[in-house]
Amino acid sequence: MPVTGDQQLLKQLNRMALVRQVSAQPGSSRAALADVLGLTKSTVSLLVRELVEEGWLAESELRTTGEVGRRATPLHLDPGRLALLGADVGVDEARVVATDLLGRVIDALTIPYEDAADAASCVRLVALGLAGLARRLGRLNAAGGPRRVLGVGIGLHGAIDEAAGLLRHAPHLGWRDVDVAGLLARHFGAGGPLAGVPLYMQNEANVAALAEFEFTPQSATDPLIYLSIGYGVGAGVIVSDRLLTGLHGFAGEVGHAILQLDGPPCSCGRRGCADALIGLGALLGDSRPSPAALQDLFDRVGHGEQAACAAVAAAGRQLGVLLNNLWASFDPMAIVIGGAALRLGETLVGPARAVLAGYAAAAMMTAPVIRTSQFGADAVAVGAAALARYRLTRPLGA
Amino acid sequence: MPVTGDQQLLKQLNRMALVRQVSAQPGSSRAALADVLGLTKSTVSLLVRELVEEGWLAESELRTTGEVGRRATPLHLDPGRLALLGADVGVDEARVVATDLLGRVIDALTIPYEDAADAASCVRLVALGLAGLARRLGRLNAAGGPRRVLGVGIGLHGAIDEAAGLLRHAPHLGWRDVDVAGLLARHFGAGGPLAGVPLYMQNEANVAALAEFEFTPQSATDPLIYLSIGYGVGAGVIVSDRLLTGLHGFAGEVGHAILQLDGPPCSCGRRGCADALIGLGALLGDSRPSPAALQDLFDRVGHGEQAACAAVAAAGRQLGVLLNNLWASFDPMAIVIGGAALRLGETLVGPARAVLAGYAAAAMMTAPVIRTSQFGADAVAVGAAALARYRLTRPLGA
Repeated sequence: MPVTGDQQLLKQLNRMALVRQVSAQPGSSRAALADVLGLTKSTVSLLVRELVEEGWLAESELRTTGEVGRRATPLHLDPGRLALLGADVGVDEARVVATDLLGRVIDALTIPYEDAADAASCVRLVALGLAGLARRLGRLNAAGGPRRVLGVGIGLHGAIDEAAGLLRHAPHLGWRDVDVAGLLARHFGAGGPLAGVPLYMQNEANVAALAEFEFTPQSATDPLIYLSIGYGVGAGVIVSDRLLTGLHGFAGEVGHAILQLDGPPCSCGRRGCADALIGLGALLGDSRPSPAALQDLFDRVGHGEQAACAAVAAAGRQLGVLLNNLWASFDPMAIVIGGAALRLGETLVGPARAVLAGYAAAAMMTAPVIRTSQFGADAVAVGAAALARYRLTRPLGA
Repeated sequence: MPVTGDQQLLKQLNRMALVRQVSAQPGSSRAALADVLGLTKSTVSLLVRELVEEGWLAESELRTTGEVGRRATPLHLDPGRLALLGADVGVDEARVVATDLLGRVIDALTIPYEDAADAASCVRLVALGLAGLARRLGRLNAAGGPRRVLGVGIGLHGAIDEAAGLLRHAPHLGWRDVDVAGLLARHFGAGGPLAGVPLYMQNEANVAALAEFEFTPQSATDPLIYLSIGYGVGAGVIVSDRLLTGLHGFAGEVGHAILQLDGPPCSCGRRGCADALIGLGALLGDSRPSPAALQDLFDRVGHGEQAACAAVAAAGRQLGVLLNNLWASFDPMAIVIGGAALRLGETLVGPARAVLAGYAAAAMMTAPVIRTSQFGADAVAVGAAALARYRLTRPLGA
C-alpha cells in the first residue's frame, strides 16, 4: 500500500505526540501510550522502536508484574544521546547552553561582547560559541558517547520576525533589522558541526516562557505567562499548547501597554507604558544603563537606602497593576516573573503581590499563581533550547 | 482492514478540514482541495460525497475547461439544507436567530423579558423561542424544503464556565451560578425539535468575535479581537484559529484591566478598570441603567449637549488606551468594536481612534485595523450561531 502524504503527516504527528506524552508522563508504557493517544498497540510499538533507535526515547529497567508474560517497560526521554543548543543574545553578554532533551544544562559558555558592540560582531561571537559547544558534544564524553545536536534556538532582546529570521528592533541594544538567521547560517557554513541543523529564533520573553512550559516535569502549565523585567518589560504567553506570537510577532509586548495616561515618556515614543514605569531602564533614567549603574541600584536597595527603595516600591505597585491586567486579558494558570530586576527581590515583588492580592480580594476572585523562574539567570538560554524542542515536536508548526 | 480509533479521528478531521477550506475558498474543486489539504483525490471524493449527502456542501454548475474530459466542479457550503441557531441572552431582552451555514440570518425573533427578571424564567423564554424557530425550519419553506438544525449556540452577558454549562456571574443582569445548559436541555426535552441537538454557550464578546471570524467570506482574519462596549466592556480574542478562553473561561475580560491606578470604583470591586471608565454603566453612574436612561444619554449626545459629549469623549480617550493595550498584548490583525455604545458614534470612537493614532505615530508603528461589527445589533445572536459552527467543525475541541 503506498504511503500517501496524509499518512506520512499522521505518522510524524503520532511520533511527536508520543514524545510529548512521554515527556508529560515519564515512565509510560507502550500500552498506556496507545490508550492515551488512541493509537493501536502495533502503531505505538513501531513508532517507539524508531524513537528509541534515534535517541529520543529510552527504556527504563523492566518492571515485571506478578502475571507471567505481562510486562510494561517504562519509557522516558533519553537524556544521554541527543542535545539542544540555546543562546541568550543579551544586552551586555551572550550565554550559550547545551541541554539534554529534558532541559538540563550539560555544557555552557558565557561570551562577553567586549568591544564588539555591533550586531554582526556579536552574532559572530555567538556562532563561535555555539559551534564550540557542538564540537564538544560531538566528542566521546564522560557519559560514554557523543551527542547529536537536534536543533539550535536563539533568544533575542527585541522584536522578532521569526518567519524571516530577522531581529526587527532591539531598543536596549540599539540594533535594527538584523538578519540574525542569515548571519548565523553563514557562520555555521557547509562543513561545521552545526551545518544543516535546524535554527529557530524568538524574543527573549517568549523563549523563557517556553522553558517553563516545555521543561516542567509535571503536567503542562497552560495558559502560562512569563513576564520578563530587565532593562525593559515584555511577556511570553503560552495558550493551548502554543506560543502566542501575533500578526507581526509582537504579541506579549505588554511593556508597551499603557498604565498611566500621559505618564512618563517611554523609549518607544509613547507615554506611561509599563516599560517606563517598571523596567530597570526607567528606574535608572537610561534605556541602556551601564552594568555599574545597575549594580549601584542593586547595592542601594540592598542597603535599604530610602529614596531607592521608595522608587522600586512604586515600580512594584505598577507591576501589580500589570499583573492584574495580564490576569484579566489571558486568565492564566500562572505568571512567572524573571529577568535582571528580580535582583531587587521583595522590594519590587512585595508591593506587586500586595496590589494584586488587593484586586483579587476586591473582586472576590483567586488571582493566578505568581512565581519566579525555575531557571534563574539561564532562563533565556535554556528557553532558546526549549524553543528548538518546541518547534521540532510540533510538526504542523505552532 | 479494521477502522481503528485514530483512522476514525483522521477521517473526521479531514471532513471538517474540507468544510473549513470550502468556507475559506468557495468554488474550490476536489482537485484543489486535495492539493491544499495534502489528501489523495480519492479520499477527497469520498468525503465530499458524504458531505454533499448530509447537506454541508453543494456543487455549483459544472465549469468545463477546454480540454475534453477535464472537469472541475466548484464546491461551496450549501446554504439551503442545514441551519444553525443562535441566542443573544441580553440584559433587557433576548434575540434568537436561525442562520444558514454562511451565517446569513434566515429567521429571527426578539423576546422581551417583561416581568420575567429571574434567570430561570428568561432562559425558559429563550428555550421557547429557539424551539419555535426550529419548528418553523422543519416545515417546507419557500426555498423548497425543511432544514435540519446542526447546533444551537447561546451568547451570555457574563462569565461562563463552558465545560460545566454554567453562567458564573452576570453583573449587569444580577445572575450568579445559573445552570443555563441544564435548564435549556430540560426545556428541549426528549421529543421536541431540538432534542439531542448539540448545545454550546459562551460569553457574548467571545461569540461576537466568532461571528466575525467564522462568517467572514474573505480568508480568515487572525488574530482578531472583538471589543464589546455595552453596559460593561469585554473582549473576545481569536488566535491561531481558536477562541482564547483561559483557565477559567475569563480570558478577554479586559473590562477589568486597570487603566487608572486608584481610579473610579468598578462594579467588580476594583478601581480604575476599563469598565468603570468606558462602559455605558459608568457613563450613567449605574451598572444596570434603565433603557430610558440609556436613550436619554443617546439623545443628549445626539443633540450635542456639551457636558454629555465631554463625558463620552473622555471615555473615548480611555477607549484609545485600551485599544493600544490590546494591540500590545495580542498584536491582532483587526479590532472590531461592537455593542450598544456604538450608538454614541464618533463622539465615542473618534477620540479613541485619535489616541490610538497618536500612540502609533509616536512608536513609528502601524496600528491594527479598527472597525465596527458587520453584524450590527445581531452580532451576539449571529455569533452564537457561529459558536455552534466553530465547535462542530473542529472535532478535536478548540
